[in-house]
Formats: sequence, C-alpha cells, structure tokens
Amino acid sequence: MTQAELTAHIERGLEDLRDLVALESVSAQGRMLPETAAFVTRLLEAEGFRVREYPGEVAPVLVAEAGEGPATLLIYNHYDVQPEDPVELWESPPFQLTERGGRLYGRGASDDKGEFASRLAAIRVVKERHGGTLPLRVRWLIEGEEEVGSPSLERFVTEHAEELRADGCWWEFGGIDPDGRPVLSLGLKGVMCVELRCRVAASDLHSSLGAVIDNPLYRLARAVASLRDDTGRITIPGFYDDVREASEADRAAIARIPGDGQAVRDTYGVTRPLATGPEYHERLNLHPVVNVNGWGGGYEGEGSKTVLPAHGFVKLDFRLVPDQDPARVLELLRVHLDAQGLTDVEIVELEAHQKPARADAGHPFVRACIAAAREAYGVEPIVQPSSGGSGPMQPFQEALGVPCVAAGIGNIGGRVHAPNENILREHFGQGVAFGVALLERLAGGLG
Amino acid sequence: MTQAELTAHIERGLEDLRDLVALESVSAQGRMLPETAAFVTRLLEAEGFRVREYPGEVAPVLVAEAGEGPATLLIYNHYDVQPEDPVELWESPPFQLTERGGRLYGRGASDDKGEFASRLAAIRVVKERHGGTLPLRVRWLIEGEEEVGSPSLERFVTEHAEELRADGCWWEFGGIDPDGRPVLSLGLKGVMCVELRCRVAASDLHSSLGAVIDNPLYRLARAVASLRDDTGRITIPGFYDDVREASEADRAAIARIPGDGQAVRDTYGVTRPLATGPEYHERLNLHPVVNVNGWGGGYEGEGSKTVLPAHGFVKLDFRLVPDQDPARVLELLRVHLDAQGLTDVEIVELEAHQKPARADAGHPFVRACIAAAREAYGVEPIVQPSSGGSGPMQPFQEALGVPCVAAGIGNIGGRVHAPNENILREHFGQGVAFGVALLERLAGGLG
Repeated sequence: MTQAELTAHIERGLEDLRDLVALESVSAQGRMLPETAAFVTRLLEAEGFRVREYPGEVAPVLVAEAGEGPATLLIYNHYDVQPEDPVELWESPPFQLTERGGRLYGRGASDDKGEFASRLAAIRVVKERHGGTLPLRVRWLIEGEEEVGSPSLERFVTEHAEELRADGCWWEFGGIDPDGRPVLSLGLKGVMCVELRCRVAASDLHSSLGAVIDNPLYRLARAVASLRDDTGRITIPGFYDDVREASEADRAAIARIPGDGQAVRDTYGVTRPLATGPEYHERLNLHPVVNVNGWGGGYEGEGSKTVLPAHGFVKLDFRLVPDQDPARVLELLRVHLDAQGLTDVEIVELEAHQKPARADAGHPFVRACIAAAREAYGVEPIVQPSSGGSGPMQPFQEALGVPCVAAGIGNIGGRVHAPNENILREHFGQGVAFGVALLERLAGGLG
Repeated sequence: MTQAELTAHIERGLEDLRDLVALESVSAQGRMLPETAAFVTRLLEAEGFRVREYPGEVAPVLVAEAGEGPATLLIYNHYDVQPEDPVELWESPPFQLTERGGRLYGRGASDDKGEFASRLAAIRVVKERHGGTLPLRVRWLIEGEEEVGSPSLERFVTEHAEELRADGCWWEFGGIDPDGRPVLSLGLKGVMCVELRCRVAASDLHSSLGAVIDNPLYRLARAVASLRDDTGRITIPGFYDDVREASEADRAAIARIPGDGQAVRDTYGVTRPLATGPEYHERLNLHPVVNVNGWGGGYEGEGSKTVLPAHGFVKLDFRLVPDQDPARVLELLRVHLDAQGLTDVEIVELEAHQKPARADAGHPFVRACIAAAREAYGVEPIVQPSSGGSGPMQPFQEALGVPCVAAGIGNIGGRVHAPNENILREHFGQGVAFGVALLERLAGGLG
C-alpha cells in the first residue's frame, strides 16, 4: 500500500468522524441515540461486519463480528458523548467537526467517536492489504451508555460471554503524551456518581428567616467539607479498608512514567495542584478520589437576592481503585453522613456504578499491544497500570477473563468532557497506523 | 365619608397597584427603573405633590412634598422589586396582579408597591375629608434601589437632610400577624451581601484529574462550613464583639410577642427549624445571621457529568444587629478565611452594605403609630424592637434623628422575595384605614 492510499483511508476515516460528531448522541439527555446506533451499524455493515443490535437501558448495544484467523480481538467503543454545556465557551459549534491549527474540534472528536473512526479506518487498510478479507476475527462491542455509567454493560457482557470471548480487548480510549509517546493503560478506576440533596422547607423564604430556619446549602457544605481533607485524602471512615496494596510491578511502571503533570497544569492553567513530583503519577494511578462535579441552589443570577433557599444539591463522583466496591462505598457514605448529624442529607444514586479493574502486565496480548505501539509510533510507549479515568472494564475481566489495553488518539489538551474537545489530526493518522500494526500482529497469532 | 366612598378609594388604590406590578422594575437587573419612577411621579403629582427626581446609583430617587400642618410625616417606600425567578414556580404571571381566594398575587404586591399604593389611597381619603387639602406636611422619599441594598441612600439622606426632616418616619413595610394583629417594628437588622469565589484552573477538566488538582467547590464548601455551627451561631472570631446587649425594654417587648413561629413553619412547610419557643422571637429580633442565598458551579443539569469544575461561587448575606458594622464584619471574614487556609477564596462585595438600627420605643411618634394601629385594626398591635429583615433605616436615625416605625400590609404567607408573592385584599383596605388614622392623628399635632 502506498502512502497516498493510506492517506486516503485516513481522510475517509475523518469523513466518518465528521458525520459521527454531527449526531448529538448525548446519553445523559437521551438525545439521538437510536439514530447514531443505526449510522454506526451502516458503517460496520459496509465493511462486512455482521451487526446485532440489543436493547440497553437508554441506548442500543451493538455487537459486530467479521474476519477469521488465529486470534480473536475484541474492540470496545461507545457512540454516546457528554453534554456540550457550557456551550458559550465553545469556539466552534460543538457538533460540527472543525479544524484549526492542526486540531479537530467537536464533542466526541476524542471521546469516543475519533477512536471508533480511526479503528474502522485501520480495518479498511488491513482488508485492502489482504485482498478484501480480514485475517483475524474481530468482535466489536459498541454501546451508547458509557457516559452515563454503562448501566447495561455488566449484565450484557455476562449474558453474551460467548459472543464476546477473545484473546484480548482493545479498550475504547488512550492517548499520546506531549512528547509524542503513546500511553497504554492496563486498568481503570471505578466510579460512583451520587447527588446529595437537602431541603428545609416547601418553598423559598426571605433570608431574614435564616435566624430561625436552617439553611440547606450550609448543610450540604458541611457534608462536602466532611468528605476529604485539604490534601485530597478522603475522610469517610473505612473508605480505604478495601484498597489493594500496589504491587512492586505497579510501582516500578509508575516510576518509569515521565514528567510530573506540568504539561497538564500548563495546558489548563491550573493554579491549585494537589500533587507534583513523583506523587503525581502515583495519585493518578493508585489513589481513590472524591470530586464535586457540580452544585446548585438558591439564587444564581446577577447581583444578589436575599432568599433562604428551600433546597439545594451537590453532585459527586467517587473514583475507586481495586478492590473497592461502589456499593460498599455508598453504604460507608450514608453511615458517615449520619455520624456527622447529617441524616437529613439525602443521597441519590445518579447512574450505574463501575467497579475498578487492572490487567496483568505480563499477558501476551499486552506485550503485543506494546510492540505494535513501538512499531507505529517509533518510540517506547508509556505503560501505566491504571488510568485516572473510569469505564466498565471490570465485567470483561471478571466474566470473560480478557485482558484489556487502552491505546488511542487522545491528547493532553484534548478537553475531553469539557468545551472545545479536540484531537490532533496527526494523532488520528498515527492511530490508524497503530491499529494496522496491532491487527497484523494478531493475524500472525499471539504465540 | 361613607363606607362606599372609602371602598372606592381602596379600589382605586388597587388599580394603582395593578399598574405598578405590571412595571418590571427589577433593580438587580436594571429593568424598567426610569419608567417606574416616572409613573410614580405622575401618581404623586396628581395628588398635588411637588416631586423632585434625583439620580441614584442604578435608579432615580424621588422626593415628594405636600400639605401643611402642625406635624411633618416622612414616608419611605421603594418602587423596585426582587427578581421573579424561579419563574416556573409562579402560579400566575409575576408581573400581572392576579386575585385568587382573597389574595392578590404579583411581584411587588407586598414589597413594596402594595405598601405605596395603600398609603397613596390613605392620602386621597384624608384630602377628601379636608376639602382637598392635606392638614399635615407629608414628605415622601421613594427610591428604586432598595432591593440591591440602597447604595445611594445614606449619602442622599445626609445631603438632603433639610428636605427630609420630620417628626417621624413611616417605614416602607410592615405586616399583619395570622390573628389579624398589626405588627409594628422599631428597628432593622443590617445586611452585608458578598460572593465567595474560587478558581483552580483556566478551564474545566476531566474529573479523573481530581486526584492531582484541587476542587473549587470543596474549597468553597469548607469556607461555608467554617462560618457557623449547626445551631446557627456564627464562628468567625470577633464576630459578636460589637453586638449591643439587649435592653430590658427590648426583652420585655419580645416576651410579649405572641406565638413561636408555628404559623411560619406551617405556611412554608419548614422541616428544619433552628428555634422554636421563646428563642424564636429573641433570635429574629436580636441575633445576627449568616445565610447562604445561592451557589453554583460545574454541571447542574440532568444526570451527571464527570467534570472537575474550573471555578464556583457562593452567595452569602449577613444580617447584623446594633452596633455591628458591615465594614468591620467584612474584615473579620477575610481574616477568618485566611486563618482557615482559604486565602484563595475571593470575597466579592455584591452591593452596598446596610448598618443596623433601632428606634426608641418611648418616642411620641412611636406612641402615635401604636394608637393609630389600635384604632384602625381594633386590636392591640404587636411591637417588635427589630424586624428580622433589613433596610436603610440607619441613615435616617443618624443623619436626621427621626424615629422610624414600620407598619404595613404584609402577611406571614406573603412569599416576599419568592414566587407567588401576595397580599390579602382585606389587609390592603385595613392599611388604608391605618394610614388615615395616622395622618389624622398627626394633623392634630404630636402633643
């Protein structure tokens, strides 16, 4: 295949991405999910995949299969995206893929439509090289509920174990560090999202009545302040009891990760880091976190309004590490709030929880991924035991026993989940090359 | 004057109120303020008042004068209102006076357009009784900035002392208790509104980075939680140093106030009272308060979004009592936050502060008001040393030495500053009768 032919496949992949970004598949708001599933199905069927569509909680689950060979690769992606707000901070329309300065901007450009499109392009390249056939079995699971916590996936994976069995799983995301080195992640943190709510009255009151009636935002502030200390350490009793001690191999891999997050701090203009130096990667890989992702209540407009709000809310996400269990953490949170005298602070579960997971760095599939990355990027990849992020990796490991490796096209300034989400055009092409290298390697068997 | 003639004046007053409510004079948002000032001017000029209009910070200040006699009454009102949000909770359009079940609903129906309209109606009655002349001097100060903290008033009152000098001041609000007893207030708490702000980055980040970057909403929660305890007592060091010890007369008057707030709790469906029993009125009259009136930051929509917000805010109002000084409290707040390690939490002053004030219960003008209330309502009025609310009473006492008495047409379920603000139609008529009694009494001199 000539460079021009490869370039043509990359351009076609970017056209797919443009079409995908235009579909406003926001799962948290139930927008355009069946339409996007249908579009993804047509793309896959055009490449010879047999696609089966199953109902999920809020969006269809797609399972596709094609090819035949000595190895079976499972690919996991999702076609849903995060909400686009605050929309006024986008410099181009969120659902219109827009190129500026070598970057492609749009909701889902990175997470996860860019990943999907680059992988589909790699499959087209391999098929063309092999006379129109795929020299390995590819099974592709694509869901539309990842951004709301994959509520159907655990059950689905368990019930469809035979359809999904594979030698390894190419996870839905991944990235390139600022020096151009691909980052492979072998694990994911768990996540549990809840809303704390407090109400003191049926309707808002004049704030002078604050002398004699309690304040729901004070109650919630006290709850939030009680969850962690200023170093970020979580202060819920028992919270760390189930945290697995990091292995020597984990710590060694973490010690080899370059940098201490300065690029992140520069890119985002961070003024309050919690960790720099060696602690940076240790925290990202190994530490659980409680994050306040939003709150509201009372008067939020211009100026002021002397009102005593009837109620308020706080949204929290907990990032968990092996072997913490979201259900257990939820129990501990309730016990903790009660012990703080905050029995009136209600806990509402916002979405399905995800358990933490971590793969074995010595597995042949992991080694194949590392080798493919070395080949495609021409540099030594960075291997991290766990991403700081989350996803439904745990059911794959438990139910299927399939090691999962995250490798993809994200970048440190990619503003995933935020306004102006983007990828570098160059990374998209490299992602296609990595896919080709991995597929070709697996076509030769895992040895 | 026949009852039919009085009724006609009340109906005409309600027509004025209907017109006034339709003017969306929201001072916090700078809406329709000059238009409303012009409308008020036309109403006053039609009754023979000479009206002078002066520029304020955000809205014109009106000073009107009419009549001649042995006493001079200063009336203070305001033509601006609070914002109408959350507008979806209104059961009828906020700017359309709507009658349901004996109540008149609309923004400003009570605070403060209803008060103004009932007083104007009383003046029309007295003029008609006295052959078209007003048998006392009435000076009327009507501002349009009360709901944003009266930023011009202190300076204005000082600079226009001669125009405003009087034997007593009829304050802008007041109310009727659930048993039909008028409540006269001789003081007001001070108020200081601030916004606390915290920022940790230039833009929002993926919440997984919460492992290594601090959270602005946690910082703000810790600030809020540090301001008070669960009983409502403020925990800022030095905060209570300047609180004036309540006099025996204050405590005796408070002890005579009936009830313990059960009607308020029932009306608003209060589930978390801070005080009941004898402590209820003591707190409302004498205790300073910190109230969280709103907060926002991060994702506030449906479902969840795993984002680490770049910034957030909290809106606070402090209610102060004599002899606390808002400027001093602001200094103490900064020192306190710094001592808590919250040097990154910014304090933004939202509007002009108001100092607390309390009148002498033995003054002849106060006694005249009590007598007029007894006459108009046929019951013994309730006298409270200080309202729980605030207003710019202090400049009147300091610069003019004029005792102020709040007496008006509000009700306990009046939802002032909240959706479905209302008055009882019956109270409007009684308010006109009280105004007539007070004006007639003052026309006879203060003795």
